[in-house]
Amino acid sequence: MQQQISVITLGVRDLAASRRFYQQGFGWTPVFENEEISFYQMNGFVLGTWLADKLDEDSQRSGTKRPGAFALAHNVPEEQDVQPLIDQLVAAGGTELRKGDAPPHGGFRGYVADPDEHAWEIAHNPAWTIDARGLVTFGV
Amino acid sequence: MQQQISVITLGVRDLAASRRFYQQGFGWTPVFENEEISFYQMNGFVLGTWLADKLDEDSQRSGTKRPGAFALAHNVPEEQDVQPLIDQLVAAGGTELRKGDAPPHGGFRGYVADPDEHAWEIAHNPAWTIDARGLVTFGV
Repeated sequence: MQQQISVITLGVRDLAASRRFYQQGFGWTPVFENEEISFYQMNGFVLGTWLADKLDEDSQRSGTKRPGAFALAHNVPEEQDVQPLIDQLVAAGGTELRKGDAPPHGGFRGYVADPDEHAWEIAHNPAWTIDARGLVTFGV
Repeated sequence: MQQQISVITLGVRDLAASRRFYQQGFGWTPVFENEEISFYQMNGFVLGTWLADKLDEDSQRSGTKRPGAFALAHNVPEEQDVQPLIDQLVAAGGTELRKGDAPPHGGFRGYVADPDEHAWEIAHNPAWTIDARGLVTFGV
């Protein structure tokens, strides 16, 4: 079975607030949008931000909760890029969870939550290769 | 800012149960494992399954809940591949959320939750290109 994830879909309550965070905070451009979803073409897969009640309906699930027990990470080129991006994401409606500092496993990272409480780690990890397309290769 | 996600980290309670789901259910091979985490090299990024209390500690967050308001998707080559993979994931400790059927937006999909209640959509979507490396391009 291909080790492949095609989409990460985040349930959102307020699409305008979510778009502000991703489009102004991260500076990302959607590849498709309508009145209930935004899709972003990422590094080899797609990020979707979809009204949470639509996602619940599609997955035939009720009672999804916030914040969920997961995190996404975005890696930046240099250690000194971590905190400014966290600050920029907070200015775009995010909430700082952890200021940038050095974890025991190396590198540098902080955490910020998006307007729907989804956690983002903003990290510098010199052991991981990231190519010009954004494709990330695990390294130790 | 690069439209890039380097890691998806799922909080898990029981690493052995999680490994059974991902390694026997999906048939994926980890690139790194220790007593608290497994990493899988995916299509341009990394999937991590990490003990949830470690993730909470790293993100300086408490009170994360299950199931979270998000879903991951894995795309399969053919419509008839959807339900057998859901069945295989259920046999490896998952819980079926929705049997494979045709959504209004086209294609074919079902949903299964991993042992930690994280939702996976198993989908066939003929409009999206997936190359031999598993790199997925949004299509309509």
